[in-house]
Amino acid sequence: MWTRCVTTVAQNAIKTGSSRAASSIVSGEPKEPKIVTSEIPGPKSKKLIAELDSVTQSSSVQFFADYEKSLGNYITDVDGNVFLDIFMQISSMPIGYNHPAMLNVFKDEKRLKALVNRPALGSFPGEYWPKKLKDVLLSVSPGLPNVMTMMCGSCSNENAFKCLFMTYMKHQRGENVDFSELEKSSCMVNQPPGAPDLTLLSFHGGFHGRTMGTLSTTHSKAIHKLDVPAFDWPTASFPKYKYPLEEHFKENKAEDDKCLAQVEELIEEYNKKGRPVAGIVVEPIQSEGGDNEASPEFFQKLQRIAKKYGAGLLIDEVQTGGGPTGKMWCHEHFDLETPPDIVTFSKKMITGGFYHNIDQKPAQPYRIYNTWLGDPGKLFLLEAFLDVLKQQNLLDQVNSVGAKLKSGLHDYEKEYPSLLNSVRGRGTFLAVNASTTALRDKLVGNLKKKGILSGGSGDNAIRFRPSLTLQQNHVEIFLDRFGQVLKEVK
Amino acid sequence: MWTRCVTTVAQNAIKTGSSRAASSIVSGEPKEPKIVTSEIPGPKSKKLIAELDSVTQSSSVQFFADYEKSLGNYITDVDGNVFLDIFMQISSMPIGYNHPAMLNVFKDEKRLKALVNRPALGSFPGEYWPKKLKDVLLSVSPGLPNVMTMMCGSCSNENAFKCLFMTYMKHQRGENVDFSELEKSSCMVNQPPGAPDLTLLSFHGGFHGRTMGTLSTTHSKAIHKLDVPAFDWPTASFPKYKYPLEEHFKENKAEDDKCLAQVEELIEEYNKKGRPVAGIVVEPIQSEGGDNEASPEFFQKLQRIAKKYGAGLLIDEVQTGGGPTGKMWCHEHFDLETPPDIVTFSKKMITGGFYHNIDQKPAQPYRIYNTWLGDPGKLFLLEAFLDVLKQQNLLDQVNSVGAKLKSGLHDYEKEYPSLLNSVRGRGTFLAVNASTTALRDKLVGNLKKKGILSGGSGDNAIRFRPSLTLQQNHVEIFLDRFGQVLKEVK
Repeated sequence: MWTRCVTTVAQNAIKTGSSRAASSIVSGEPKEPKIVTSEIPGPKSKKLIAELDSVTQSSSVQFFADYEKSLGNYITDVDGNVFLDIFMQISSMPIGYNHPAMLNVFKDEKRLKALVNRPALGSFPGEYWPKKLKDVLLSVSPGLPNVMTMMCGSCSNENAFKCLFMTYMKHQRGENVDFSELEKSSCMVNQPPGAPDLTLLSFHGGFHGRTMGTLSTTHSKAIHKLDVPAFDWPTASFPKYKYPLEEHFKENKAEDDKCLAQVEELIEEYNKKGRPVAGIVVEPIQSEGGDNEASPEFFQKLQRIAKKYGAGLLIDEVQTGGGPTGKMWCHEHFDLETPPDIVTFSKKMITGGFYHNIDQKPAQPYRIYNTWLGDPGKLFLLEAFLDVLKQQNLLDQVNSVGAKLKSGLHDYEKEYPSLLNSVRGRGTFLAVNASTTALRDKLVGNLKKKGILSGGSGDNAIRFRPSLTLQQNHVEIFLDRFGQVLKEVK
Repeated sequence: MWTRCVTTVAQNAIKTGSSRAASSIVSGEPKEPKIVTSEIPGPKSKKLIAELDSVTQSSSVQFFADYEKSLGNYITDVDGNVFLDIFMQISSMPIGYNHPAMLNVFKDEKRLKALVNRPALGSFPGEYWPKKLKDVLLSVSPGLPNVMTMMCGSCSNENAFKCLFMTYMKHQRGENVDFSELEKSSCMVNQPPGAPDLTLLSFHGGFHGRTMGTLSTTHSKAIHKLDVPAFDWPTASFPKYKYPLEEHFKENKAEDDKCLAQVEELIEEYNKKGRPVAGIVVEPIQSEGGDNEASPEFFQKLQRIAKKYGAGLLIDEVQTGGGPTGKMWCHEHFDLETPPDIVTFSKKMITGGFYHNIDQKPAQPYRIYNTWLGDPGKLFLLEAFLDVLKQQNLLDQVNSVGAKLKSGLHDYEKEYPSLLNSVRGRGTFLAVNASTTALRDKLVGNLKKKGILSGGSGDNAIRFRPSLTLQQNHVEIFLDRFGQVLKEVK
């Protein structure tokens, strides 16, 4: 039922562009949010938070969820509140809660055994592994022939960074030139030339993870970085656009040019002082640091700069990848001349990892290696998700549902210009700015009280990160509640 | 059957110290290894390696395994070879292959839903989470009251390192003193004072991971580190003992003192030059870099030095934790005055993470945080493993089986003094040196041809990393095959 009816309903919704609530594609999904406690978190959540706090840092917990009752686009908390979830575990649940296709994965004995007998994939992979990498991960590759699996976004980026450094040094050294004895001995005590003083260029507002390599390229919030030593690497400005885009074409193009000029200046400066830039690390939309976007032309030119200076281009699709922008990979909107050198992923992709070109493949074993190198269990879940995505044309649905959501947000920014501005994004991967941080926090908080679970991005933005199964009727519910909230705070 | 007979058989084996092969505790486990191909990897594995190589770096792959057929202590490859596995996925499978207790975990609908609806544990944990952290992880804590879950050993260490830095700075700043504006702005561009120039002291031969923070404390093999920029942090010598220990007490004590003096000198040197040592990072046995061990007195004194200089002590039990040394945590053999500040784990613990004291708990949210913060599915598997460990007194079995294995190795080093030396380790977490690297590689290779899957550690050691279900009969099989190999190469 669940899997049968979805295509038809979704396609009808697309065809008709109906503004009436389409019937839910998730059998048994709640019809609307329901808030039963006067405060959120409610009393049961509060008790559990206190219990958790005796064991671990718990002050980031918003509420405790009931993952048996949560369904489709709705998350239920332990106090019985039911939220329409447009944040979806920080953009990570691709097709919502308790999707039958996902629940079925480990009912298959072979997959269960692959999950439980977790191998060291770099040394003793299971028979199924090469075929699964091809059929599942490479079936949605953004034009890159190789893939490495990892555990999460941070370690995907960490290992991808290492590939950028190794490839840069391979080019310096010559393709088949062996490491020198001095390189081998000096790297053991963290000194050049074996541990060379290479750098990566990243962008203000970017987020690439919280481990110490990736944290050195993360520049979104101070609380992520305070007290942690960091590599002294170059940071360039990322474009800050004026909205609506069609009215600010010239200024935004100038902004692109200014940022790109800075990228080039920084590369030249760092190369000159003997700290070469081995790679450029960038999100296609700055997904934590304010949902800042840049034009296809910006990314095309950025790639040309990377090529000019022999720096690898890494596009971090940890949050944008897996379909929410209406394409499998957000950077596919940019019409790049060639694929990026590396594309990292995690979150909606369920497994972490990165695609890369052959130039980025390490020639020697054990350079990009760890005990588990990912987890077959996660690849089987990804397979189930991608089957649903393909069978049900979820990317089309994302585009039509996203268009409706964006249009509704535009209406509100016109109605409340002192409260909202800068509606932006692609697919359902959207954002809107509130006029102040305090207002943004109030809007997110009041939405929650009305049963809508959303999230903030950067200082002022509300970010939309629903699952790919969000439909027209969910958008209508959201817009209705958002309208109420805006009316209350104006 | 599997779960019923084990205690009795194991206890009988302990009581009798029987040298006859006890009947296997794993119902249906092969009686002995069986090699059916003339080369390993066999033809089917070779074909799959070629297939894998078109998709990803594959030259570290030893063979492809059949995880449906592998059982207990035996791993079966796709060519039908059956190996007694004393390497166990680089020390990570705690109770062997296809253990019924593990296969049962996700037959429970509630646990399956916790696995499939993977939450952002720092924001929307499931109702079950606080109780599971307490009942499962804290039930085996080495005296530390708090725990954070992570995904793997590297990210456990990365995040634990961050705690060391944050705690050090908290002590500098004063408990409730807020960050300065300068700290907040400077950290965003990777500069002090916000991103302070703190260091961690680690040891030559140590291994703590391959992400960029942990890699800066890893000093086991050049191939792990070449071409990757590293933090310029102090590295001290780790004791290198002469064996047998009882004949070299004086020299080994002098070795301890020399290394400890160097630790103290390095801390003073780095503190003096404004690059304070915020923590000491050490394995209880250097598990990748040669299975180097140090005395309880060494670790007691190391802890005193750490306390003297206000540096946190992190004991990395990623490979040693979970029982293989005959105690749940290897450092519990050391009778430390207080627990270490932080103990990291992964591998046999199935989930990554770290235990810590309250001083190391960040006061603010989002400082130690990421999207998933571990994986409930892994905690449920750990719960099943720990139930088996407790019910079947596996730590006792590890001690008795390890004693037999160690005694057999001692016999061989006496018989072949020009080939073998320095038998060492605790429980079944043992090692023996070959006289040269070439010989070690040959022994490991020839063992494999006789159906024993083992691994190397450092330059010269063979390391033993069996599951906790290794029994006397497996040891007899190993010793028999090892004897044949030694006879052939002498």
